[in-house]
Amino acid sequence: MINPNTTQAMTDTIAKCAAAVAGPEVTLTGVTSEIGPESIESHYDEALAVPGVLRAIQRGEQEGVDGYVIACFGDPGLEAAREIAAGPVIGIAEAAMQAASHLGRGFSIITTLARTIGQSAHLAERYGMQRFCRGIHACEIPVLDLDRDPNARKVITEACRDAIEADRSDAVVLGCAGMADMCGEISAELGVPVVDGVSAATLTVQSLVTMGLRTSKRGEYATPPVKRYLSGVPPAG
Amino acid sequence: MINPNTTQAMTDTIAKCAAAVAGPEVTLTGVTSEIGPESIESHYDEALAVPGVLRAIQRGEQEGVDGYVIACFGDPGLEAAREIAAGPVIGIAEAAMQAASHLGRGFSIITTLARTIGQSAHLAERYGMQRFCRGIHACEIPVLDLDRDPNARKVITEACRDAIEADRSDAVVLGCAGMADMCGEISAELGVPVVDGVSAATLTVQSLVTMGLRTSKRGEYATPPVKRYLSGVPPAG
Amino acid sequence: MINPNTTQAMTDTIAKCAAAVAGPEVTLTGVTSEIGPESIESHYDEALAVPGVLRAIQRGEQEGVDGYVIACFGDPGLEAAREIAAGPVIGIAEAAMQAASHLGRGFSIITTLARTIGQSAHLAERYGMQRFCRGIHACEIPVLDLDRDPNARKVITEACRDAIEADRSDAVVLGCAGMADMCGEISAELGVPVVDGVSAATLTVQSLVTMGLRTSKRGEYATPPVKRYLSGVPPAG
Amino acid sequence: MINPNTTQAMTDTIAKCAAAVAGPEVTLTGVTSEIGPESIESHYDEALAVPGVLRAIQRGEQEGVDGYVIACFGDPGLEAAREIAAGPVIGIAEAAMQAASHLGRGFSIITTLARTIGQSAHLAERYGMQRFCRGIHACEIPVLDLDRDPNARKVITEACRDAIEADRSDAVVLGCAGMADMCGEISAELGVPVVDGVSAATLTVQSLVTMGLRTSKRGEYATPPVKRYLSGVPPAG
Amino acid sequence: MINPNTTQAMTDTIAKCAAAVAGPEVTLTGVTSEIGPESIESHYDEALAVPGVLRAIQRGEQEGVDGYVIACFGDPGLEAAREIAAGPVIGIAEAAMQAASHLGRGFSIITTLARTIGQSAHLAERYGMQRFCRGIHACEIPVLDLDRDPNARKVITEACRDAIEADRSDAVVLGCAGMADMCGEISAELGVPVVDGVSAATLTVQSLVTMGLRTSKRGEYATPPVKRYLSGVPPAG
Amino acid sequence: MINPNTTQAMTDTIAKCAAAVAGPEVTLTGVTSEIGPESIESHYDEALAVPGVLRAIQRGEQEGVDGYVIACFGDPGLEAAREIAAGPVIGIAEAAMQAASHLGRGFSIITTLARTIGQSAHLAERYGMQRFCRGIHACEIPVLDLDRDPNARKVITEACRDAIEADRSDAVVLGCAGMADMCGEISAELGVPVVDGVSAATLTVQSLVTMGLRTSKRGEYATPPVKRYLSGVPPAG
Repeated sequence: MINPNTTQAMTDTIAKCAAAVAGPEVTLTGVTSEIGPESIESHYDEALAVPGVLRAIQRGEQEGVDGYVIACFGDPGLEAAREIAAGPVIGIAEAAMQAASHLGRGFSIITTLARTIGQSAHLAERYGMQRFCRGIHACEIPVLDLDRDPNARKVITEACRDAIEADRSDAVVLGCAGMADMCGEISAELGVPVVDGVSAATLTVQSLVTMGLRTSKRGEYATPPVKRYLSGVPPAG
Repeated sequence: MINPNTTQAMTDTIAKCAAAVAGPEVTLTGVTSEIGPESIESHYDEALAVPGVLRAIQRGEQEGVDGYVIACFGDPGLEAAREIAAGPVIGIAEAAMQAASHLGRGFSIITTLARTIGQSAHLAERYGMQRFCRGIHACEIPVLDLDRDPNARKVITEACRDAIEADRSDAVVLGCAGMADMCGEISAELGVPVVDGVSAATLTVQSLVTMGLRTSKRGEYATPPVKRYLSGVPPAG
Repeated sequence: MINPNTTQAMTDTIAKCAAAVAGPEVTLTGVTSEIGPESIESHYDEALAVPGVLRAIQRGEQEGVDGYVIACFGDPGLEAAREIAAGPVIGIAEAAMQAASHLGRGFSIITTLARTIGQSAHLAERYGMQRFCRGIHACEIPVLDLDRDPNARKVITEACRDAIEADRSDAVVLGCAGMADMCGEISAELGVPVVDGVSAATLTVQSLVTMGLRTSKRGEYATPPVKRYLSGVPPAG
Repeated sequence: MINPNTTQAMTDTIAKCAAAVAGPEVTLTGVTSEIGPESIESHYDEALAVPGVLRAIQRGEQEGVDGYVIACFGDPGLEAAREIAAGPVIGIAEAAMQAASHLGRGFSIITTLARTIGQSAHLAERYGMQRFCRGIHACEIPVLDLDRDPNARKVITEACRDAIEADRSDAVVLGCAGMADMCGEISAELGVPVVDGVSAATLTVQSLVTMGLRTSKRGEYATPPVKRYLSGVPPAG
Repeated sequence: MINPNTTQAMTDTIAKCAAAVAGPEVTLTGVTSEIGPESIESHYDEALAVPGVLRAIQRGEQEGVDGYVIACFGDPGLEAAREIAAGPVIGIAEAAMQAASHLGRGFSIITTLARTIGQSAHLAERYGMQRFCRGIHACEIPVLDLDRDPNARKVITEACRDAIEADRSDAVVLGCAGMADMCGEISAELGVPVVDGVSAATLTVQSLVTMGLRTSKRGEYATPPVKRYLSGVPPAG
Repeated sequence: MINPNTTQAMTDTIAKCAAAVAGPEVTLTGVTSEIGPESIESHYDEALAVPGVLRAIQRGEQEGVDGYVIACFGDPGLEAAREIAAGPVIGIAEAAMQAASHLGRGFSIITTLARTIGQSAHLAERYGMQRFCRGIHACEIPVLDLDRDPNARKVITEACRDAIEADRSDAVVLGCAGMADMCGEISAELGVPVVDGVSAATLTVQSLVTMGLRTSKRGEYATPPVKRYLSGVPPAG
């Protein structure tokens, strides 16, 4: 479980949610990225988060990890990670949308800031989930306020309620790893399935590993060619 | 595990493959349809298989089954089944294609008779998997010959090899429940991931049940309105 | 003219509308399905209606029928019917949408219950008519109330009026065979073309037969392979 | 029946094919355009043919014509014609592709010169028929040679045969009004349905008129605003 | 700079806007069409404007012009023009949408009369810009009133403001050559980029000429085949 | 002109090609990235190149640069760059494909290694250029061998020739900044337009700056929120 931002509290939430669903034979490790932003709310943040994700994967490979979850709804670095990992790598947006596609004809996504809507839309297209995704809505709570703002859960619940009405949706996808622990309550209140990507991605990796399926090394995701890299500290805010 | 055709031997293969991947806490039951064709190789077969699938679901509901796999690559009756089941219902085409979408940029499907290619293409579109599906190819072995024809595995392996070359694919999806037990060998021979929908669907249902996710009853998949039905024996070949 | 549900009154409406447009050289026969639901308002209903449609086609083939209309807006069993019929088989959704595509840049569909919107959307996609279909709206009148509810015509007219405003549409498609006899009045009141699929499908079959065009037996719609079928009474509500 | 080019012999072929399918109550008139190119094989030809088509429509309106067929596979001037005609206007490409969409999962188009392939592809997209159109192939016979070249029919038959093999198509659409009289023979030889747009468009107009359906005057196809036009002889080759 | 309508005042506006951005080495000539309507607000107008555009191109070819801008937002005659011109030909809709695609995730188009919305939508699709175009809105000011109506700029500014709110757009495209000189002011007032197609197309032609890029004469845009044309004065309103 | 890899020789080629087309009023500066791989041939390379691109942009902003070209065909970091730059930022893939879209109905892309085909396909989709892009082909020459391998130009020319035949394309796009100086010769030899993204992007930036158009700061590309970043040296090969 790789948390692509550098905030340990969020890693803890992620690891807890993953542990709640993983099978008894699974050993889960939550890793906080060591390079990059404290939260990911822009393409800039995402770009600077990716090197930390890749370093975490490289360490995992040395330790023989079977598979990885990238636990940020922008799925940062997913393709590069697939090139360097032997086992499967799954993003939480990918897994959440696929799970929601089984539950009805269409779902809505509730994301944090409106500026991230474009990235969610882009991922919906990439994963073929555009036809199920009926709307993406922002609750306008910054990532790090999700567990600091006492009203967060209420605001998000209302955003979900509005979304299923406006989009005529059957289900909701929560568009941030920091919302992972809110699923049950919101679902109970609204009477529709609410999908958390952290759980979904954990179980997708577990399923692929169980089936012995790994990223194909035949084409685009083959191990990258070896070459010289100039080291250097990347820019910050 | 619902086998939509009436051939018990195929149910046995399906149940075995499912059991090989299901978690220790899962109770699996293989059910052979009691109405309809011995194998499904046309829209006509599929149409006549659906009532048997629905009856199996209705019995499952009475027994409190948590979720269902429809184990035929045409995913017959999937939407009707979702209306009448409380828990999740997953088709093997749906699950196989989603699993393959994690393993590379594109996959090929190897199906039985060429006349079923259209249905696979249709499902790829419905599930949003068209963008990953680079080709659908028939091995021209009828369903019931899959375990009778001693050359079947060889012919299918060659069809897979040709497909990944022609389509520049990273992975293969086997397009018939009757091929479920061939995955490992073909994958080992060709060096690419080979996905069996029976395993994939079993684990998808298991994952959804673990997360407490069920078909939304808010919209299109709500319980159907009660009404009068005229009984009658459907047509046959 | 096959009415896929088991309600004779609806067959009468359908036959009357078809007769009003068919050429003098055409012999029309309205057939009520003998198996299945009294009306079709769910995927479950549709699945159980298909065997009756297929039996009607098989009888038609024995009688040398030249072509068939499936007179339910879900076009149930269309593909299976094409496999077993020699002449053309046309669904009313298909024919209505194609006719409407000639009359303007975009049309709206008015359907019965909201739960059928998904199926209409699905058919619009299958027939390539998605780009003309600007909206699908439910009047929330159940099929069998269409001729029992004295307000039905008024409610549907208002739904049409709202739809062409909201969707900026040029034409309306009535999304149920049971609305077939309302076209003229609604069109007169709203000043836009209103398309009834029963008439449209009747004339499409007539046109194809006139041109000597039949379903191709070369590929997917070839006669299905002969095989054993287990008889059995399908489930009911 | 408007022949958008200025070659009378082609109008005769068109009128003959239309007459062979039209109902007894229909009065057909073939009109040869009085302005523009002798055949249409480029966007330039098409652009210069449109004014003649529009003039023919204007005359038809004065005479109270019920509907129009534009008998060139590029469907030149179709949208402008719909603005100025009260009754329906149908292009032969539009009608042929829709008819072929009922006959199988996919069709191939055989056109004259390769340079017209793009326009056919464009029309397939506009009419939503792209999903049925599996390939467009040129026989490389110029329009005016279709009835002068003694080998034309043979060359076109072979092009059809190659196309259905290469595209795995179920049916063929002949992509030029000048091929209208070849349908029967080619179909008989190849054993697949072969669609001629002239017949198909004639029957589509007849069907729409029978149903009382006309172009909607509510939106884009409303009568154009009156304004000043500078007369002038358009350019030639 | 070809103004496809016959109104000289509009040519002057176009030429002025083009001159404001063209490089010092560029010689610009504004040409008013000599055949057709005084403004283009329907498919009919557009069809009758095309011959004048083509004549202007033919004269340009005789004079050795390097490239052409078709300065009407419907891009009338673009494909025919490409066939007969040696250098590049660019429409202002095409250029404006491409420019706007660089400035944000989505843009809105403000056009003149609502009846032209369909053509703009069609062009957005043809140029692949549909995914950037979030909405097309009419200000309902006829083309020739754009510089006669003292409120025009204000009405258009408000239409732009409403559009970016309703569509959540990042930029605006002005959908008429007659609006070309309003960009700066509207952009300053609304705080978003506002794109004028006349400037954009001028610079696109200039860029292509600088790179030595011309329309490919290999395929569809090769010089049209020579043939006989019947001269004749086209119809008018 | 930002060269996203760390190879100075490639920056020189890029700067030379850009200078050959830029207007006299433009000051061009070529910048070699200071962090990351020596060439970009995988998602992993691309991910590690992005921080260097962003640092170059940040320096440019301090120096008041008007606009930027990202001179690698994967357009790495384009969206993040747009968030932090005031002026326009253009990728060479984006600019090349748009330029090629004006020159014919379809183009082919010739890229370096086959493993980069997926990224080019992805960009074609993102920019709406998929409908123009008829094929993407690899010449299998690694980036750094483009100017070391004496046969490179010949191999690439043959790849272009094969591509336009196989794809029936009208034009070619060279899919690597390292091929920028080969355009003229290949075009002369093959007789079709050959587009280099470096020139195209240079002129696109120049055009946007001339028109006063900058990235919209209203939505997704607004300046990123300020936050804490953990510094750290990213991973290497």
